[in-house]
Amino acid sequence: MNTTLKPAYAKTNDAVDFQTNPSDYRHWRLSFDGRVARLALDVDETAGLTPGYELKLNSYDLGVDIELYDALQRLRFEHPEVGAVIITSANERIFCAGANIKMLGLSSHAHKVNFCKFTNETRNSIEDASEFSGQKYLCAVNGPCAGGGYELALACDHISMIDDGATTVSLPELPLLGVLPGTGGLTRLVDKRCVRRDRADYFSCTEEGIRGERAVEWNLVDEIIPASKFDEVIAAHALEASAQSDRPDSEPGIVLDNLERTFSQDSLSYPNVDIVIDRKLRTATITISAPSEKPESDLESIKRAGSQFWAFAFARQLDDAILHLRANEDQIGTWLFKTKGAIEHVEQIDAILMEFSADWFIREVTLYLKRVLKRLDVTSRTLISAIEPGSCFVGTLLEVALACDQVFMLEGEYEGNPLPPAQVSFSKMNFGPLPMVNGITRLSSRFLANPDRCDDLKGRIGERLEAEAADAAGIATFTPDDIDWDDEIRISLESRASFSPDALTGLEANLRFAGPETLESKIFARLSAWQNWVFQRPNAVGDQGALVLYGSGSRPNYNKQRV
Amino acid sequence: MNTTLKPAYAKTNDAVDFQTNPSDYRHWRLSFDGRVARLALDVDETAGLTPGYELKLNSYDLGVDIELYDALQRLRFEHPEVGAVIITSANERIFCAGANIKMLGLSSHAHKVNFCKFTNETRNSIEDASEFSGQKYLCAVNGPCAGGGYELALACDHISMIDDGATTVSLPELPLLGVLPGTGGLTRLVDKRCVRRDRADYFSCTEEGIRGERAVEWNLVDEIIPASKFDEVIAAHALEASAQSDRPDSEPGIVLDNLERTFSQDSLSYPNVDIVIDRKLRTATITISAPSEKPESDLESIKRAGSQFWAFAFARQLDDAILHLRANEDQIGTWLFKTKGAIEHVEQIDAILMEFSADWFIREVTLYLKRVLKRLDVTSRTLISAIEPGSCFVGTLLEVALACDQVFMLEGEYEGNPLPPAQVSFSKMNFGPLPMVNGITRLSSRFLANPDRCDDLKGRIGERLEAEAADAAGIATFTPDDIDWDDEIRISLESRASFSPDALTGLEANLRFAGPETLESKIFARLSAWQNWVFQRPNAVGDQGALVLYGSGSRPNYNKQRV
Repeated sequence: MNTTLKPAYAKTNDAVDFQTNPSDYRHWRLSFDGRVARLALDVDETAGLTPGYELKLNSYDLGVDIELYDALQRLRFEHPEVGAVIITSANERIFCAGANIKMLGLSSHAHKVNFCKFTNETRNSIEDASEFSGQKYLCAVNGPCAGGGYELALACDHISMIDDGATTVSLPELPLLGVLPGTGGLTRLVDKRCVRRDRADYFSCTEEGIRGERAVEWNLVDEIIPASKFDEVIAAHALEASAQSDRPDSEPGIVLDNLERTFSQDSLSYPNVDIVIDRKLRTATITISAPSEKPESDLESIKRAGSQFWAFAFARQLDDAILHLRANEDQIGTWLFKTKGAIEHVEQIDAILMEFSADWFIREVTLYLKRVLKRLDVTSRTLISAIEPGSCFVGTLLEVALACDQVFMLEGEYEGNPLPPAQVSFSKMNFGPLPMVNGITRLSSRFLANPDRCDDLKGRIGERLEAEAADAAGIATFTPDDIDWDDEIRISLESRASFSPDALTGLEANLRFAGPETLESKIFARLSAWQNWVFQRPNAVGDQGALVLYGSGSRPNYNKQRV
Repeated sequence: MNTTLKPAYAKTNDAVDFQTNPSDYRHWRLSFDGRVARLALDVDETAGLTPGYELKLNSYDLGVDIELYDALQRLRFEHPEVGAVIITSANERIFCAGANIKMLGLSSHAHKVNFCKFTNETRNSIEDASEFSGQKYLCAVNGPCAGGGYELALACDHISMIDDGATTVSLPELPLLGVLPGTGGLTRLVDKRCVRRDRADYFSCTEEGIRGERAVEWNLVDEIIPASKFDEVIAAHALEASAQSDRPDSEPGIVLDNLERTFSQDSLSYPNVDIVIDRKLRTATITISAPSEKPESDLESIKRAGSQFWAFAFARQLDDAILHLRANEDQIGTWLFKTKGAIEHVEQIDAILMEFSADWFIREVTLYLKRVLKRLDVTSRTLISAIEPGSCFVGTLLEVALACDQVFMLEGEYEGNPLPPAQVSFSKMNFGPLPMVNGITRLSSRFLANPDRCDDLKGRIGERLEAEAADAAGIATFTPDDIDWDDEIRISLESRASFSPDALTGLEANLRFAGPETLESKIFARLSAWQNWVFQRPNAVGDQGALVLYGSGSRPNYNKQRV
């Protein structure tokens, strides 16, 4: 039975679909003028993702953010000419009121946490575009800008606020709702914009927000502009920023075709990613296929292939699969990764990514692979890889194994199977282009005590390692042979399925990120963890909690105990 | 009405007292042999802090940890000769089974969180002694070592495990209890001992733990030693470590006298720290008094003063006050800091601390001041300082203000009061000796965007800044004058008291630590935040939760949703 997911804006409780395209947008207006794009928020109140709330005052839900994510991806791939993006509002009364409160009050704990995570990833991708992709983001705050709306502004390179006497920036979550600004706001205030902590504290406790010169003095915004000159100044900024971009101004973009997907009750299949769910084991087996043929090796052919270029196609498919499983399959606590196909083809892909890294499209593909792998790192599922004969965990695909909590590798051959023993190998992609959210490679994080070990492995790029060597190299956690393989994997999956899923989430979030911390890792660790904690406190979500009572006219009666 | 707190081991639900002394220990045996001390855990099962559980198998509760903290403090101050400390068990069957599970099951969420925080601080102080104080900690694991017991071992410099076939190290919290090893274990595994993340993951999911060569290979312990040679090898290690210590071997120690304290219903008074609680405003006003006379200025007099030396006495009093308010006054959400006394005397204290920083006792006092101020940083209370005429927020005491979420400073004089306008000033103590848990000074964290600003302020050491100058220097958040002062403070305290205490805790934990992260900050941010989250999930603490069902014979039936 094949089924198609409903579009994101459908009023349905069915699965959430993370695929959309501009012709289906209900909430964003995307327009272009030479090297400048304009992304204007104009939320359709009636088009919430699920029933029960209206998206008033340009407030958003997951559906609005799915469109934003789609727009950001298209700006990167379909519009190589765009060097600057203006984020603004098309609603005359308001820039954005943040996440819809009624929606939050109606949502399960799991939905709130998952929604915040996706929203965080989307905002982080704005900063990724700015830092690595020659695409600057300018926020034109042309009306009141609150909560998640201001957090979106904080993800931009530059914040201009209209000086109209009514427009403020604010983070009213704490005084109004008893929760935190949970999508990066607090971290970006003090760590990105370096707002002094006492001012950040006052600001975050002030429902009405801050405007005018004080907002500039406190570095909450970069400038205030009189209404009469607002559009003109913003346009000049955008022109200036786009002129400094290294993106090509006359190359055609790469169109994001609709993904080919086939859903059935317990499976989901893309051309290069295949998922089979075992509900009893609470496990999704995700099998990634290498290119079936020798990949294109010159830029012209690669761009002709466009969204069919394996590295790009695989990234899109895995990205969609991750988002689908996270949002729609929350009872499936373990993802078991396998790969199959020709090792050589994956090696050739990696060689292409390195050789043409200066090309805008290849750069985008690599940056996208990086972002998809980061999604894996912060996914609250146990990740296990099984490296078997016939697999191709090399280079970029080895990163999938390195992202896993445990790595099983079969020692020797399967009895009665002609396939040679499994091998892994490194490519240059393992030593820099695909860092984790903590800013270092998965190998560096893995061998924190021995940086020399990374240097040694770098010297062994291309060498094929069978299980014993992979064990010695520190890649394989366990290397059972054919006799024990099935049992060991099964026991591992069964025991994982027997544990508290909450404790597993906490455990994995702590063990995956040895080493330094970055703005991103701080957001996913400190900020998100605290927000998740607050999100289940009775003061927020109990019968008398602030999120539940909001709009009822009643004030929450907090339990004042400090914990 | 004066009351005295019950000793920590009293079976009472009354207030927890963090003061004890070796003659009252019920759980630890402290002994000395030249430059080596031995701290042996020998928990009295019957001496739990509150009724309802027995401390079997050398398991611990807050009372056990209060004794440990007292012992660590005495080792630092009363025993300058001690260069190495052996932590071991005096129980033949077991090293330590970790935090008592029955106790955790009976405890409120607030108690669990507060208990973990104090336990973390105590373990961090072991590492502080090793890094800065010439006192190395050697863990002699002479029996099964589980959970919090292993986390204690992880805080030591060296872990030796007896090879007796029965002894393992383990972190069974996740498989057994559905919670995390929450007192630093996960962070220290991957960030201190650099255990590979996949091995750390397997280890933390394995109830029975790991022993023998594998424990060494995985770096879970530093060595295994046959039972026949265990004591001998440990003794040799301790001798060797103590021989490398720079602590003096023939100086007398400084005795920790019993603290002078006077409790009444709404106040707590020490010689240099005075606390008055306003229950309606949910505020404790904490007033610190400068030395009333010119402090001792030569080492001999300082050591003769001993625990009466102001810097040391103040540190002890504030430390005890913080611990008392955290544990026993959790409805009091805001701490308002004031100071009074002669600015010159505080400046003289700071000059002494800098001048004699090479002396062991002065070094200990400074390190202790650092640890007490760190306790403030991680305290889940709103911290506000009020700088008024007659105050002495300079140098070390200015750090109290810099630890605050907001700083009010009165501009000008009080009408009808002869005191001159309030002043603040910097000393060398503000520029290095008292870093936060994130490893940088409070000024560096405050001016993250402008490191130059710290350099500029360093050039202005000793300059007295009145409100306008303190505002310009970035120290004061607000500088109301006499007319507005009382109203502004009151409005601030009232609004703070009206907010969700949970959201405030999350907010403050995010805004206080801009800049880098360290092992310590990772423990308090990432690990503690996740543990707090797990600690209130139904899978842990619901009717069918693992913590509640432990020991009942029933297995928890987890809700398998991944969040």
